[in-house]
Amino acid sequence: MLGDRLENVRKSVPLVHNITNYVTVNDVANVLLACGGSPIMSDEPEDVEDITSICGGLNINIGTLNQNSIKGMFLAGKKANELDHKVLLDPVGAGASGLRTDTALKLMEEIKFTAVRGNISEIKTLALGSGTTKGVDADVADAVTEDTLDQAVAFVKRFAKESGSIIAVTGAIDLVSDGEKCYVIRNGRPEMGKITGTGCQLSGMMTAFLVANPDDLLEGAAAAVCTMGIAGEIGWDNMKPEDGNSTYRNRIIDAICNMDRQTLERKAKYEVR
Amino acid sequence: MLGDRLENVRKSVPLVHNITNYVTVNDVANVLLACGGSPIMSDEPEDVEDITSICGGLNINIGTLNQNSIKGMFLAGKKANELDHKVLLDPVGAGASGLRTDTALKLMEEIKFTAVRGNISEIKTLALGSGTTKGVDADVADAVTEDTLDQAVAFVKRFAKESGSIIAVTGAIDLVSDGEKCYVIRNGRPEMGKITGTGCQLSGMMTAFLVANPDDLLEGAAAAVCTMGIAGEIGWDNMKPEDGNSTYRNRIIDAICNMDRQTLERKAKYEVR
Amino acid sequence: MLGDRLENVRKSVPLVHNITNYVTVNDVANVLLACGGSPIMSDEPEDVEDITSICGGLNINIGTLNQNSIKGMFLAGKKANELDHKVLLDPVGAGASGLRTDTALKLMEEIKFTAVRGNISEIKTLALGSGTTKGVDADVADAVTEDTLDQAVAFVKRFAKESGSIIAVTGAIDLVSDGEKCYVIRNGRPEMGKITGTGCQLSGMMTAFLVANPDDLLEGAAAAVCTMGIAGEIGWDNMKPEDGNSTYRNRIIDAICNMDRQTLERKAKYEVR
Repeated sequence: MLGDRLENVRKSVPLVHNITNYVTVNDVANVLLACGGSPIMSDEPEDVEDITSICGGLNINIGTLNQNSIKGMFLAGKKANELDHKVLLDPVGAGASGLRTDTALKLMEEIKFTAVRGNISEIKTLALGSGTTKGVDADVADAVTEDTLDQAVAFVKRFAKESGSIIAVTGAIDLVSDGEKCYVIRNGRPEMGKITGTGCQLSGMMTAFLVANPDDLLEGAAAAVCTMGIAGEIGWDNMKPEDGNSTYRNRIIDAICNMDRQTLERKAKYEVR
Repeated sequence: MLGDRLENVRKSVPLVHNITNYVTVNDVANVLLACGGSPIMSDEPEDVEDITSICGGLNINIGTLNQNSIKGMFLAGKKANELDHKVLLDPVGAGASGLRTDTALKLMEEIKFTAVRGNISEIKTLALGSGTTKGVDADVADAVTEDTLDQAVAFVKRFAKESGSIIAVTGAIDLVSDGEKCYVIRNGRPEMGKITGTGCQLSGMMTAFLVANPDDLLEGAAAAVCTMGIAGEIGWDNMKPEDGNSTYRNRIIDAICNMDRQTLERKAKYEVR
Repeated sequence: MLGDRLENVRKSVPLVHNITNYVTVNDVANVLLACGGSPIMSDEPEDVEDITSICGGLNINIGTLNQNSIKGMFLAGKKANELDHKVLLDPVGAGASGLRTDTALKLMEEIKFTAVRGNISEIKTLALGSGTTKGVDADVADAVTEDTLDQAVAFVKRFAKESGSIIAVTGAIDLVSDGEKCYVIRNGRPEMGKITGTGCQLSGMMTAFLVANPDDLLEGAAAAVCTMGIAGEIGWDNMKPEDGNSTYRNRIIDAICNMDRQTLERKAKYEVR
């Protein structure tokens, strides 16, 4: 049950090491606290191995990457792999610049990721660049809609199987697959796109859910996606006419903070394919 | 009409590349989203040329500059010039340190800026340092008030003409000039000074307005200034007794998010000299 | 009186240079503005000496340190010492990584700190690492509670005396000592732990209180701690059922912004030992 996945985070308070961009980092930290985890941030190569060693999970987000933090990502990722920690990749902007694409692909090669979360365009970039997908995948649509859903589910399942990672593609419809099953999730609101960093926030939270749910990583990842989407719905219901995207950001994090098992299970809208 | 300038942002959703300080970057991103634009942040020299190439505008803000991001500023600025993108400079702290003054002056020399936005002290530093102003300009007052207005308007017009950039000086009274005309804007509230980064936010938003309004850059820049000031007024009207500067920050961004053509035109207080 | 300490900040508007982590930096800036100070951030070695020279105080926070910012910390700290500015250390994560522990200890050796603020674990790391404490101190408990209070007070007093800095240990009960007297403060709420960076915020604010209260640094530091804790209480009273940690963050900063002498004195809960 999804509710157990959340409860496991609340009970175990997983410490998550984040190497993440400086744009949305504060919100990532507050979302990790809101869901029941505990954040620590560090990107300096000389610091990251020690820091990741005391954590249960590592969240690598390549937004605002620089040469120094890239070194930190590889060092932390390898150390986390050694220690059998949960490791997540958020390939922000893969496909938008050579450095981001190359860094994301090289990370995929050298580090074993428990999960990868991005939008369809970023995930396609990884799939094509890593050569794990057939030519046909290049044709997967750039948005997951009811019309393109079958094709997108097949793509995500195949990439999950071939990469050995849980793949989470988020957008209007969210897909989370381990290569066998695929959660198709229809929570959330389009207005979430007017807030910077809801994707980064989800990646941080998903890492906590993976750490806290080693026995069912796929359901853990899906529960994180549902929690974010439902918080977007509840946050929207709490908006007043004069509120806009800045207050909406606060309302979403507040809703994660107040999320309970019953609300999560009652409001989750998903099917498993 | 100012309202058209805002509508053009909403219709065209300009993608703005920001090389900006890590203090206020999250608010800059949310303000860009609030006004109808789309933000992307990158400062790594190896990354910035690719990123700026997919954008329509570039916002360079030298707060928390470092040797690496300074390189990124020059590379991105030159690439943006090559591509004929709109480029804005926010010379945060020019005059407060040698590195900031020198970096801002060198940027002005090597990069063609569509607009420069700062407070009177920062803009004076640029004008004097670049040798484009006569000695008399050294005497322009350190605050733009009704008493010093004539002198300040003359200074801003002259610096705009000589630098070839739109110059926006913001403070109690805001001035925006292209060298021929000068908008004198009296929107805003003094309490905005109790929030970190309203200037940085305006610079990000102004870049989006420039990109979306290539046919009337001056009115575009002035519309951004009015939007920020009016949002400050509306945000203040929505404050409750227990609210303080943190909630005010959210209220201002919310008001930008909800700004429409009618409100902007009805509440804008400006004259053109 | 504690109220005078706050009023002195409001009257003198101390400019505080912050070398601080990119996670909580925006909140630190807004808290400094809320209490009546003025923030400026800079970590680039070539920039920090000029910046710190125009300020009254320097707040060094080692969260998300990197090789470049570490250089900046030493240069700024030495320059601030030369100029007899107030300097505060927040040793975030000392004890959690070798780099953080070593950096904090080296900073303590080479720079004279007016005050050091951290949690008990960070402060113990400094005390033990600097060899200024007897073996018995290793046994001080990892949380300051009514049960461990006597021992903790003795530890904090001894470390303050031996280091020559005001030592502030914050947690469920806060201790602030100059080696002679120790303020034992019982303001605040446990829910503050669900917000990232309340400690960083307090360090920024405490620096402003030190600058503004040169004649009674200990009471200044204690007044900053009380202000933060009381703001946590008032902010909590203003929470609605749908609010969570993100709104609580705003409510606390708002409460600092609205704090007045009477409220501070009426609500402060402390004893001096």
